[in-house]
Amino acid sequence: MTEINRVYRIEELGDVEGIVLGQEPMPVPGATEIVVRMRAVSLNKRDLMLLDGTYPMKARDRVVPLSDGAGEVVAVGERVTRFAVGDRVMGGYWPKWVSGRIGPEHFDQFGATLDGMLAEHTVMDEQWAVAVPEGLSWAEAAALPCAGLTAWTSLTGGAPLRPGDTVLTLGTGALSLLAIQFAKLLGLKVIVTTSRAANAERLIALGADHVVDYAVDPDWSGRVRELTGGRGADLVVETVGPATIDRSVRASALYGQVVVLITRSATSDELTISSEAYASSLATIRREFVGNRDQLEEMTAAVAAHGLRPVIDRVFPFERARDAYRYYRGGSAFGKVVIELPGQSERESQRPMAVTRESTPSFA
Amino acid sequence: MTEINRVYRIEELGDVEGIVLGQEPMPVPGATEIVVRMRAVSLNKRDLMLLDGTYPMKARDRVVPLSDGAGEVVAVGERVTRFAVGDRVMGGYWPKWVSGRIGPEHFDQFGATLDGMLAEHTVMDEQWAVAVPEGLSWAEAAALPCAGLTAWTSLTGGAPLRPGDTVLTLGTGALSLLAIQFAKLLGLKVIVTTSRAANAERLIALGADHVVDYAVDPDWSGRVRELTGGRGADLVVETVGPATIDRSVRASALYGQVVVLITRSATSDELTISSEAYASSLATIRREFVGNRDQLEEMTAAVAAHGLRPVIDRVFPFERARDAYRYYRGGSAFGKVVIELPGQSERESQRPMAVTRESTPSFA
Amino acid sequence: MTEINRVYRIEELGDVEGIVLGQEPMPVPGATEIVVRMRAVSLNKRDLMLLDGTYPMKARDRVVPLSDGAGEVVAVGERVTRFAVGDRVMGGYWPKWVSGRIGPEHFDQFGATLDGMLAEHTVMDEQWAVAVPEGLSWAEAAALPCAGLTAWTSLTGGAPLRPGDTVLTLGTGALSLLAIQFAKLLGLKVIVTTSRAANAERLIALGADHVVDYAVDPDWSGRVRELTGGRGADLVVETVGPATIDRSVRASALYGQVVVLITRSATSDELTISSEAYASSLATIRREFVGNRDQLEEMTAAVAAHGLRPVIDRVFPFERARDAYRYYRGGSAFGKVVIELPGQSERESQRPMAVTRESTPSFA
Amino acid sequence: MTEINRVYRIEELGDVEGIVLGQEPMPVPGATEIVVRMRAVSLNKRDLMLLDGTYPMKARDRVVPLSDGAGEVVAVGERVTRFAVGDRVMGGYWPKWVSGRIGPEHFDQFGATLDGMLAEHTVMDEQWAVAVPEGLSWAEAAALPCAGLTAWTSLTGGAPLRPGDTVLTLGTGALSLLAIQFAKLLGLKVIVTTSRAANAERLIALGADHVVDYAVDPDWSGRVRELTGGRGADLVVETVGPATIDRSVRASALYGQVVVLITRSATSDELTISSEAYASSLATIRREFVGNRDQLEEMTAAVAAHGLRPVIDRVFPFERARDAYRYYRGGSAFGKVVIELPGQSERESQRPMAVTRESTPSFA
Repeated sequence: MTEINRVYRIEELGDVEGIVLGQEPMPVPGATEIVVRMRAVSLNKRDLMLLDGTYPMKARDRVVPLSDGAGEVVAVGERVTRFAVGDRVMGGYWPKWVSGRIGPEHFDQFGATLDGMLAEHTVMDEQWAVAVPEGLSWAEAAALPCAGLTAWTSLTGGAPLRPGDTVLTLGTGALSLLAIQFAKLLGLKVIVTTSRAANAERLIALGADHVVDYAVDPDWSGRVRELTGGRGADLVVETVGPATIDRSVRASALYGQVVVLITRSATSDELTISSEAYASSLATIRREFVGNRDQLEEMTAAVAAHGLRPVIDRVFPFERARDAYRYYRGGSAFGKVVIELPGQSERESQRPMAVTRESTPSFA
Repeated sequence: MTEINRVYRIEELGDVEGIVLGQEPMPVPGATEIVVRMRAVSLNKRDLMLLDGTYPMKARDRVVPLSDGAGEVVAVGERVTRFAVGDRVMGGYWPKWVSGRIGPEHFDQFGATLDGMLAEHTVMDEQWAVAVPEGLSWAEAAALPCAGLTAWTSLTGGAPLRPGDTVLTLGTGALSLLAIQFAKLLGLKVIVTTSRAANAERLIALGADHVVDYAVDPDWSGRVRELTGGRGADLVVETVGPATIDRSVRASALYGQVVVLITRSATSDELTISSEAYASSLATIRREFVGNRDQLEEMTAAVAAHGLRPVIDRVFPFERARDAYRYYRGGSAFGKVVIELPGQSERESQRPMAVTRESTPSFA
Repeated sequence: MTEINRVYRIEELGDVEGIVLGQEPMPVPGATEIVVRMRAVSLNKRDLMLLDGTYPMKARDRVVPLSDGAGEVVAVGERVTRFAVGDRVMGGYWPKWVSGRIGPEHFDQFGATLDGMLAEHTVMDEQWAVAVPEGLSWAEAAALPCAGLTAWTSLTGGAPLRPGDTVLTLGTGALSLLAIQFAKLLGLKVIVTTSRAANAERLIALGADHVVDYAVDPDWSGRVRELTGGRGADLVVETVGPATIDRSVRASALYGQVVVLITRSATSDELTISSEAYASSLATIRREFVGNRDQLEEMTAAVAAHGLRPVIDRVFPFERARDAYRYYRGGSAFGKVVIELPGQSERESQRPMAVTRESTPSFA
Repeated sequence: MTEINRVYRIEELGDVEGIVLGQEPMPVPGATEIVVRMRAVSLNKRDLMLLDGTYPMKARDRVVPLSDGAGEVVAVGERVTRFAVGDRVMGGYWPKWVSGRIGPEHFDQFGATLDGMLAEHTVMDEQWAVAVPEGLSWAEAAALPCAGLTAWTSLTGGAPLRPGDTVLTLGTGALSLLAIQFAKLLGLKVIVTTSRAANAERLIALGADHVVDYAVDPDWSGRVRELTGGRGADLVVETVGPATIDRSVRASALYGQVVVLITRSATSDELTISSEAYASSLATIRREFVGNRDQLEEMTAAVAAHGLRPVIDRVFPFERARDAYRYYRGGSAFGKVVIELPGQSERESQRPMAVTRESTPSFA
């Protein structure tokens, strides 16, 4: 462990240039804390919004950005019991929300009100971390907390689905891709909408049973109904919001579930559902706020049991973190955009990364 | 039992004058059918909509109107086992929906696709009826099927509430009044909105803990939040729709339920929820379609166990059924508007009706 | 359709010789009935018990035996709407229990209080049948109603399990085999106990993750705990009863479920659970009575969606039905014992049967 | 605040004489701790078992006994946010189990592995305490944690009950009395068994609908079935165990719940359920381990909303704590046995205690 810790901080909101790499003293763990040598971090939409100042939660001054990351424990406080030096861990999305329902006392997030993951070393209470599932690379582990847990609770947080039931996901965002993968673990059929025909093959490789091209089929709710023999989708992972909610309700089964994960868009901050869509429906509209630590551990257990591996679109080195932001903001990623850091651990995962879109990043 | 059965039929849609009283032969029960001498029927909004032709379900030609009614079994088919002559029964709202989930095979309703209750005698399959709870007058029994069952399933059909939790009801329609009464059986607190200050006392007598006058307090969602110490309502019985849904979501607790029973109004057929109301909420929005026979029997068991008595606003004689429609359409009723028919039974309930607004109807 | 219907009836209880084949007139459907040309029927333990007179439900006099069967609709009554001539159907286990909870009005079973399936043609109300899932052979369809539905409701009727959770099944009865298969659809891990090491390979081929030989490992509950990292099984499909219940509770996770399907054995009619097993457990002990028609259709939808195929041990021709009983009573079957009948249908399934243990039955 | 803290410790297991009062320095709160001036503590069966050495959890050496107590916060650590000096608090039964499911990390209890409540002052982490509901006396607050929370989770922790459903409680222990009271909040009917006819009136005053004297009616399960029109109890709060479990299953409704709170007795450490009782039942047998802090706060909210007041049998002064043990072990208490301590607070509850059996304790 070196004496210097290199850390990115958001010196100025609004632009990626405001994220600045600096040098700080190595953190020392408090009695119940662990120090984690970060090996991979990943980007989510909320990180762009935090940088833009449009996220509902205000970032603290000079925060270290990014909520999702994984690394190796390199130091522990004297009262730490959950982890030992050498353990592989990832941070929870709501680090203080362990079980049950969320409440105001849990409203802290890494990279927002707490310093985040974009650093060589981070320090956190041992309660804020969970073990990385066996078999995952660092990049894959870093891909899971926000998108994976939201996909997981979207599928498992309401009335239980049955094998053979149908899930509808919208588009090819990382959360939607993980929802496809988790849906397959549950024995579900998956219909995916996309406007990029080029993605169809990859979606099907990932487990999608049907891909609906809404460029070709703007009335995709009707198409979903056709593909389900008139029944509709038993659950819709609603990752878009204002522009799609009415159609998502139309696409849903009589007793379907629509999980609303986004309530506004660049052009609207209202969700409008027509009587035509909802009057003859018993669909439940529900929400998820990512999830708690118990649910995260439930998800990582499922990931481990099934050897599920999240899709990584592209990996950037730590020094090019700002390029990772720029690339991610471009919006063409299929899978997670990850920033990796080198390690010295003996216990490092030897497995190659699973589904890397481009093995040689060439962003310029 | 006379040989003639006097029956109202909707000869022409659009106006109460289209409801015409005629004489028909007395019905004869098929093998699994019962003939019921009707003693009371009651009006619901759907009956006005059916007459107006604005109900989603099309009334069959010359249908006998009204879904809700109670009476005495006077004849049974040879294979009838659920009831005997002399039993007090009421019709189910979805007579063919017994258990579990509704499906297309259950989409029949009295007074719409099946002949309804506004007749001296009706004939129905024995499966379509349930026993009238002990202790209810005929008018009270007739008040329950549509409004009572919807109130019941609104409160009991989702995640269970706990004693001390808060329910919000909107206005003084019959369904809302019954929701107040059922909420008290469940140990819940009730907040009621109304614009008629004059109703406050009666609402409190019925069990409401707080009455919010939205004429005085147009931001009633804020008031509900105040009255619950900032928590919000754990369940909102949303009986209004477009004009109130956003405020209902604002009024609801973090993990609240909003039960949407109406999706359109005279001026809008859209439900619009703002991001401001929903982004920081985990409230579930769900629907109920009245309920099935199992739920109706669950409700009548609770009514019987607690001696609950629905509020009757006013009672009209059978011959003045059209006046009942006119009065009900006026919209000032506090409680159910009922039409009664004379009977000859020995077993007739001797108890006076409970909460009659005007003992001597004087509609002119 | 010939004029003669060959039908087995139980002329005398107690022995397979009491099951006698006779000739009867071809049944004629009532208004809501269908006549089914049977193509396959299968045996369950309850059929042996009914013959022995040890089943809790008393068989009616001269009943046609067997609850499980599948065939082709060859005639329909004039008011039948669910099926048409040529449809492939199977009977429900509780033919009158459609939805929701069972009640006394549903307490009829084929082969017990209603004539069963061991006949060339059967007649039943159209409500008592469900469609055979696409892709199943007649034998496979006949294998599902009792064992398949019980396995299905055991796994899905309680608190939902999560992918990666562990199910424990006991032995190699047909119900346990189907529970293994359904568990895999739900993404679960499966541990199976058996005393026949020879079965291990087939159990693993079917999806079992671990096979515990309780001849070698009499303390199989400890072994289950080891195999789950100390956690225990999240659900136990308890198909044995008195001899295993205590160990099943010991083998279950802190919040596990033990589904008790059998409450007595040849030597005991008590379930005894030690304080040692239960004092430190929050396991729920619950029961299933096979399931209702909604659940059966939910199961057949899952079977169809996943192309699941039940294991058939051996097939006997209709004329050798008594040999089928004898072979089944022998207790060595791995999978269902089926009796097939010839057909003349054009629509007959062309697919070979899936997992037949012996293609040439040689029972002597 | 004086400088000396008088504290009882269990110097020797086995007998009440082993509980010895001593003097210790006043505790000083750590950063996240509060010091509570105790005002009332109460006794539970587990306290007798801990003293006897028969409780499953081993008491730590020289532990301060008793899990249940309430008092006033008199000092707080510098990082405490939940409470302020002057707040009225009570300890949680599992102080470290906040939400969700219990796990090994929560297995600490006051009066067992943590110093308990029988002291003038106790110190605890602020997370281990909850606010005392408005309107309760100190004795009433001290009566709630163990017995009240177990009664609450027994009634609310499984499938929801409906108003008019029936709960069966066994005997007149404090937990059973609280179950009666909570059941009434939920709109339930309550049947209570007792062998002391003298208690019937008080049980009915508390809300019981029927009292079954099992000295007169040893087949009380049959009597329960009669009193419910043949249906049986929808939930049994099983506080006895081996001697009653079979009868409790017999007394339960087809889809009833039996909540097993005790698994052994003085003469048996087995629960035996006969096939006769269980074969024709779909009852679920489940357990509760008291409950977590979220549930405790849910319960105290219900207590506050309804002004519910636990029954206090008798109150002893702090100096006579050993007499309280002796009296409680006598087994004749109807309601909680409480030990009170004097206070100096301005904010002290002025309300008289509610249902005190003997206002002047005269134990000799």
